[in-house]
Amino acid sequence: MSYFRPTIERMEGYVPGYQPKEPGYVKLNTNENPYPPSPRALEAIARAAGESLRLYPDPTGRPFREQAARVLGTSPDRIICANGSDELLTMALRSFCGEGDAVAFPTPTYSLYPKLAEIQGAHVVAVEFPEDFSLPPGLAEAGAPLTLLCNPNAPSGTLTPKAEVERLARSVAGVLLVDEAYVAFADEDCLDLVARHENVVIARTLSKSHSLAGLRFGFAVGPEPLIAGMAKVKESYNVDRLALAGATAAIADVEWTAENVRKIRATRGRLIAGLRELGFTCPPSQANFVFARVPQGRQAGDVFERLFERKVLVRYWNAPRLDDCLRITVGTDGQTATVLDTLREILT
Amino acid sequence: MSYFRPTIERMEGYVPGYQPKEPGYVKLNTNENPYPPSPRALEAIARAAGESLRLYPDPTGRPFREQAARVLGTSPDRIICANGSDELLTMALRSFCGEGDAVAFPTPTYSLYPKLAEIQGAHVVAVEFPEDFSLPPGLAEAGAPLTLLCNPNAPSGTLTPKAEVERLARSVAGVLLVDEAYVAFADEDCLDLVARHENVVIARTLSKSHSLAGLRFGFAVGPEPLIAGMAKVKESYNVDRLALAGATAAIADVEWTAENVRKIRATRGRLIAGLRELGFTCPPSQANFVFARVPQGRQAGDVFERLFERKVLVRYWNAPRLDDCLRITVGTDGQTATVLDTLREILT
Repeated sequence: MSYFRPTIERMEGYVPGYQPKEPGYVKLNTNENPYPPSPRALEAIARAAGESLRLYPDPTGRPFREQAARVLGTSPDRIICANGSDELLTMALRSFCGEGDAVAFPTPTYSLYPKLAEIQGAHVVAVEFPEDFSLPPGLAEAGAPLTLLCNPNAPSGTLTPKAEVERLARSVAGVLLVDEAYVAFADEDCLDLVARHENVVIARTLSKSHSLAGLRFGFAVGPEPLIAGMAKVKESYNVDRLALAGATAAIADVEWTAENVRKIRATRGRLIAGLRELGFTCPPSQANFVFARVPQGRQAGDVFERLFERKVLVRYWNAPRLDDCLRITVGTDGQTATVLDTLREILT
Repeated sequence: MSYFRPTIERMEGYVPGYQPKEPGYVKLNTNENPYPPSPRALEAIARAAGESLRLYPDPTGRPFREQAARVLGTSPDRIICANGSDELLTMALRSFCGEGDAVAFPTPTYSLYPKLAEIQGAHVVAVEFPEDFSLPPGLAEAGAPLTLLCNPNAPSGTLTPKAEVERLARSVAGVLLVDEAYVAFADEDCLDLVARHENVVIARTLSKSHSLAGLRFGFAVGPEPLIAGMAKVKESYNVDRLALAGATAAIADVEWTAENVRKIRATRGRLIAGLRELGFTCPPSQANFVFARVPQGRQAGDVFERLFERKVLVRYWNAPRLDDCLRITVGTDGQTATVLDTLREILT
């Protein structure tokens, strides 16, 4: 007999990207930022790492919410903090979808979405992206209490323009959560939809844009009633004192983030140009990674393995629509030269 | 219309203990440890607070699990890490209880349990503790897939002996989760039941015993199949790099913890003696707090307010079985003298 709920017993857990235990890899597989976090964030963490750790943190993450509200031009009451934006997704599922309710999203997308739906016992309505990864029709028809849109999308890196996201917000019956994990690297974002639509929640993370994947800090911006309701399903003290201190300082250091984003966007152009030269096909990327279809006659899984042997880590999925592609994080210019040189060696 | 699931729409969120924004309080309301965390934990955090924060943490918290396994005499595969033990409780609910399933626990107990059940849409079977807070019969009769036992219990501070917990483990149909948040301050624990019972999970936290409430680190010990299944509902990167580094060093510093526990247990005896002298009735406490019934003719809510006015924070609940009592954290000897002096002033 099993002690688990049938859905948990049946499911396979989400498998995150490989995290090597030893150094020496060119690590372009989990979309980490190649530049260090803001020195101000590190100083704030050092200051917080003292005796006060014996005390619980502020349960609502107020210092961060106040700082983020100033930076983003919104109100602290429209912000909720989370232990990474993955936790925000969980909170949204638990807030809006009961067992058997639908959760809709275009696919292929972030592979955690169907896993979270499975855990919640929600019913997945996955609507396939067309070849060019433009927003597919049919999402609103699901009548789902929650629609997820990863924008820019992972793993394609493509961006649905704000005007289309706004049309989607108007047409869905429930909440539209726009997962903007990668939006810092894009030409536009959907933050201002929150003020105009009572059903739009924007999820953000400091993992990529602020070089803080190891700190686990995400947040959502939404209309007050949605944020207040989601707070009921939040763990009371979900954000620790160190993460709170670091995140508050990091979001305030706008210049540091902007400079790193500028460099990554420039390197992204070089990576795409280099990949195309080698015969890869790449949709336009608005993220800190590039989704690259291998040249005809090549097996993406094979190229992935051969990169791995040479200690260059990228991401590969053996799944429909994805299995002829690699997802390559935009690292430094040096890392980009290494991955391009290694690919050239493998392919020629 | 509401965008929320009916159960979320209806419920009121859990309200954690008051966290004052200014200093100057004698803070005995949320069971924090009055002594600082291990210097080794603070050093480990300082070392981890560098450029490597741009990288994701180890998704399974392996360094902690290996260290904790050595300290506790178990195997890393029997340990799962969490962002505080509250997250462990959520993981257990989501692993074992679907909508409409029962979750059983004796009551009054940690007031988060019914809230977590409500979020999950689970059905609460609360079996009342007798006056002396001994384990009530009737828990197993619920046939619940999950039974929770806070041991030592909050807010009573009382301990159910291991032999009785073991009988309960044998009699319940589903999983028995023993929430040992306060067990470091008790005479015995139930850890070794894990090796003998396929349905027992022990939840622990570093918040109280290791003076790390601000770090958010909990863990569970259980049979491998239960731990492996719970890992499917875990957020992939639920424990950040700083918490992982600090927790790993803290659990290794056995002497530091033991010395603080020794002091707190000694102070607990003084607090109980002082309270009894003032006419309070206290059940025997095995935790780092004392549950104290106010002298006859006094209103606990009134005493609570008057302590608050004098900047002494304790916990009070306006609820059946609790509303004639205060829960007072065991602080330093100095804080204990202050709360006793202030009570004397209020009551005489």
